[in-house]
Amino acid sequence: MNQIKKIVFLFLALLCTTASYSQVYNGKQKEINKILDNIKSFSQYYMNGEADKIAACYTKDGKIFPAGQEIIEGTNDLNKFWTLPSDVKVLKHKVTPSEITIVKKTAYDYGYYEGETLLPDGKKSTWKGKYVIVWKKVGNDWKIYLDCWNRIDEPKK
Amino acid sequence: MNQIKKIVFLFLALLCTTASYSQVYNGKQKEINKILDNIKSFSQYYMNGEADKIAACYTKDGKIFPAGQEIIEGTNDLNKFWTLPSDVKVLKHKVTPSEITIVKKTAYDYGYYEGETLLPDGKKSTWKGKYVIVWKKVGNDWKIYLDCWNRIDEPKK
Repeated sequence: MNQIKKIVFLFLALLCTTASYSQVYNGKQKEINKILDNIKSFSQYYMNGEADKIAACYTKDGKIFPAGQEIIEGTNDLNKFWTLPSDVKVLKHKVTPSEITIVKKTAYDYGYYEGETLLPDGKKSTWKGKYVIVWKKVGNDWKIYLDCWNRIDEPKK
Repeated sequence: MNQIKKIVFLFLALLCTTASYSQVYNGKQKEINKILDNIKSFSQYYMNGEADKIAACYTKDGKIFPAGQEIIEGTNDLNKFWTLPSDVKVLKHKVTPSEITIVKKTAYDYGYYEGETLLPDGKKSTWKGKYVIVWKKVGNDWKIYLDCWNRIDEPKK
């Protein structure tokens, strides 16, 4: 009986794990992989403080939709937006797409992001949110054309 | 001279008007018009307090990305989200797309929204924001699959 309980528990645990990481990719594997690579690079550039490289992840007319602000467009303004104050460091940035669907030379992508920031006072701030991105194929690469996101608040304790 | 000033002024005024209302539509006019009609209906349903009709503007697996909350998915939960408290009324809701681009049976759409709410205390609250929507063609109609938005704050006085 104990053995059966264990098996049921493991089965349920496996189900939960599968559910929370379920990801749907529609498109050629090669193209999906390129987008997944670009998503990882974006996070790495952000942790490195390389705003110019982040700006280059967008099309030349790429647009971001940050909370509270107007739509921000174009390489120069994106570079400025993603430039961190010199005394702030992004310790962690991770994007988990729920779905990436490619339709010809366009793709849409939605999912979750999470991160951790080291603030000037030495305190760490963690945050998470969700996003919708529209990608465009530019040459053999994929660039972000539209990037809209907002935070998920921590439940109040 | 005065006449020339007038002409220059009118020309500049016209330029500004054109710039602030510039809209890009890529796709068959018939399909674009259907999406534009649906955008207008959405606003009308919201002003009418018809949450069930708003929920029907989305695909059955349609998702919204409201600030501070998790991704909300599916007709029932969308109906609940768009249901206003009985003592709140949306007096105005207007969506102005900047671009609608159709790629096969998918379309992306971004732009601005603005509105006015009548609050229980009789005060009016105005608000505006920006959005990214991914539409899917369902039969002969277009439904919202992904809907991400956030506010643009009023400049501090």
